[in-house]
Amino acid sequence: MKNFFNLKSSSEVLALYEQFVPLAAENIDLISARGRILAKDIFSPEQLPPFFRSTMDGFAVRARDTFGCSESEPALMEMIHEVKMGHTSRDITLGPGQAARIWTGGELPQKADAVVMLEYTRDFDENSIAIYRPVVPGENVITAGEDYQKGELVLPRGRILRPQDMGVLSGLGISSLPVYQRPKVAVISTGDELVPADTPAPAPGKIRDINSTTLAALIAEAGGIPILCGICNDDFDALVDRSSKAIDQADILVFSGGSSVGMRDFTLKVIESITDAQLLVHGIAIRPGKPTIIARQHNKALIGLPGHVTSAIVIFYLFVRPLIRKLSGLCASHGLRMVRGRTTQPIASVSGREDYVRVQLTMARGDTGLEVAPLYGRSGLIAPLVDAHGLLPIGRDTEGLDKGSVVDVLLFPDEHHTGFNPSLM
Amino acid sequence: MKNFFNLKSSSEVLALYEQFVPLAAENIDLISARGRILAKDIFSPEQLPPFFRSTMDGFAVRARDTFGCSESEPALMEMIHEVKMGHTSRDITLGPGQAARIWTGGELPQKADAVVMLEYTRDFDENSIAIYRPVVPGENVITAGEDYQKGELVLPRGRILRPQDMGVLSGLGISSLPVYQRPKVAVISTGDELVPADTPAPAPGKIRDINSTTLAALIAEAGGIPILCGICNDDFDALVDRSSKAIDQADILVFSGGSSVGMRDFTLKVIESITDAQLLVHGIAIRPGKPTIIARQHNKALIGLPGHVTSAIVIFYLFVRPLIRKLSGLCASHGLRMVRGRTTQPIASVSGREDYVRVQLTMARGDTGLEVAPLYGRSGLIAPLVDAHGLLPIGRDTEGLDKGSVVDVLLFPDEHHTGFNPSLM
Repeated sequence: MKNFFNLKSSSEVLALYEQFVPLAAENIDLISARGRILAKDIFSPEQLPPFFRSTMDGFAVRARDTFGCSESEPALMEMIHEVKMGHTSRDITLGPGQAARIWTGGELPQKADAVVMLEYTRDFDENSIAIYRPVVPGENVITAGEDYQKGELVLPRGRILRPQDMGVLSGLGISSLPVYQRPKVAVISTGDELVPADTPAPAPGKIRDINSTTLAALIAEAGGIPILCGICNDDFDALVDRSSKAIDQADILVFSGGSSVGMRDFTLKVIESITDAQLLVHGIAIRPGKPTIIARQHNKALIGLPGHVTSAIVIFYLFVRPLIRKLSGLCASHGLRMVRGRTTQPIASVSGREDYVRVQLTMARGDTGLEVAPLYGRSGLIAPLVDAHGLLPIGRDTEGLDKGSVVDVLLFPDEHHTGFNPSLM
Repeated sequence: MKNFFNLKSSSEVLALYEQFVPLAAENIDLISARGRILAKDIFSPEQLPPFFRSTMDGFAVRARDTFGCSESEPALMEMIHEVKMGHTSRDITLGPGQAARIWTGGELPQKADAVVMLEYTRDFDENSIAIYRPVVPGENVITAGEDYQKGELVLPRGRILRPQDMGVLSGLGISSLPVYQRPKVAVISTGDELVPADTPAPAPGKIRDINSTTLAALIAEAGGIPILCGICNDDFDALVDRSSKAIDQADILVFSGGSSVGMRDFTLKVIESITDAQLLVHGIAIRPGKPTIIARQHNKALIGLPGHVTSAIVIFYLFVRPLIRKLSGLCASHGLRMVRGRTTQPIASVSGREDYVRVQLTMARGDTGLEVAPLYGRSGLIAPLVDAHGLLPIGRDTEGLDKGSVVDVLLFPDEHHTGFNPSLM
């Protein structure tokens, strides 16, 4: 495998993900399907609803029998039946001038084609009712198959299943369905200075492993299954061995740590030593996160993240999340929402690379839109990311932004939970 | 309990939720904490990072020793130490003119206050290096506590935990933390016409239960724990008994079904028969979903949803989700994102009530913004909701919207997954 250091643009990296294909399908129970991605088109095996149903409490009628009736000249009709909920009416047929009492959701008798709402009727005597307002055919009725006809496409492959989708699948009696497997993403934290996050008092010179927990959460948020492989010291043979085992049981292997020049070369050499690994990316024209490494082993990927936690998170959103989504059956994009706002101060940038600036959003007074404020801090710090609502991309041909520039911000996925919920401009 | 039918506005309903308080806290492992809501402020038990760290590969120096150096007149410094990753440097002290080799993340020796990047140095002989560019104190260094000082507020109560929050908690060695319990939400589907969703071939007149599965997914999406209590026939005593048991083990009990006038009264009577239940809402000035019933039993709630699935979903988003969020420790709002667009056609509405119109969004050509198209269909149908991206609220004082009106649309929560991801206007 040839070693090169040719910086790619972010769109070039994402284009390379077209080499990957979604994972195999698996069948799951409907009750567990929310948020999973359909692996096959779902066609309706039957009509929904299965029969003509009333949408109101009232009287099922033949609409033509009500034509011309009014408050002053009601239509008098013979009441021949009361439709009971859960009982079929298909053995009842309305003749001219006949009606049947019906409740919302009840099945219409044969020849009935409309329902008169209860409030436009009055009981006349025990066997007949007076109707004060005409109905047209189909009024207050859902026809059999009005939601879905037999054989109709209900949900397409690639759809992320939402609550209402679960509803329609329930209605059709589909209780198990094919979805793409969730990608397994293994994480190896490297660095002689690291100790596990739950170490009560790290020895002098040691620091707790921040990246494993952070990456596990990012992986789950993106729809993947995190596999934490723990901390590996900077021992080449041990790391090659651990990595080979990890990629065997995972779809993506992420290396965290190694932000120093020596460590970057080390991670690169480890990745190059994995059987059949083919280097796709060694360096991206982006800040933060330039020293990112991406390799492919058949339909699996090995990704060397930058060691600084901020850089690792940014690179995860921009390049690991799209790959998890691609293997999940979605398109190879980050899938983050964008929101428009105005910068509160000038923001410096260097042309020739993309910048991703951590920003905080606030609603301006008087509904004049969102204000976008950069949060500065060295990339070794995590506090600015804790305070940030999202990332502001600045293109490679832009030499910085003036105060008041209109910009699009990528929002972190869970942001809508944190109480920040303006009307987006 | 007095029976009344006084339509409330949606803001009146949400104001009533101030009577409810968040559930008790429970301790969970950090690794399971993503998306959970903090029940206590978290203060930093120690400094983060714990020691002065280099952010670059290079040489730790006393910055003043580099002042005035340049390409033509490098500063020559004595190399007295190499900082090994994971080893402390606190027993090393730099004297004037001394430097120590250091890697990214390494601990600075005593008296060192800056790091010169490797690329601005050259090895002079075995024990000394030449420095070609001056550094200022603090350059390429993260100071101890620069992320968080001991005792500083790190994350506030009420915060939904994001991946970067997990990172900082890991860094501080906090491996277990107090979060609000997730509300348990029981669902009883009522109706003699209903059979379980997995029934292969319902008998004539029977239909499969759509609402239980749909509501379970909506509850989980809102952060609650769904408890499906199955289908209950329209038998008063059986339903009172089942409801009393359900509310004992849940925080919220949702009744689904009963959209007909007779059934609404029935659900109301059942709710009124539950011990200590106090009616808060009987009817909301909203379409769809007017016949909604909300009662309170101490800090628990009983909610009678409209029977039509569309109405039930709309009411869930507007009034059940805010209550789940309130019990979870968030504010009593739906928490749905809003997005601005323009209507593609006139939309009718009646003043005196709020309308929530299901809408589909498309990007207009030429970046002129989002187009908002209503999806019509009777409220007994589910297909329009399957096609919808969100809900368009039309205020009670508005008598309909012209084509081209600028409107704010509430987006369904998972919408960002479905490939619909325009720059929001």
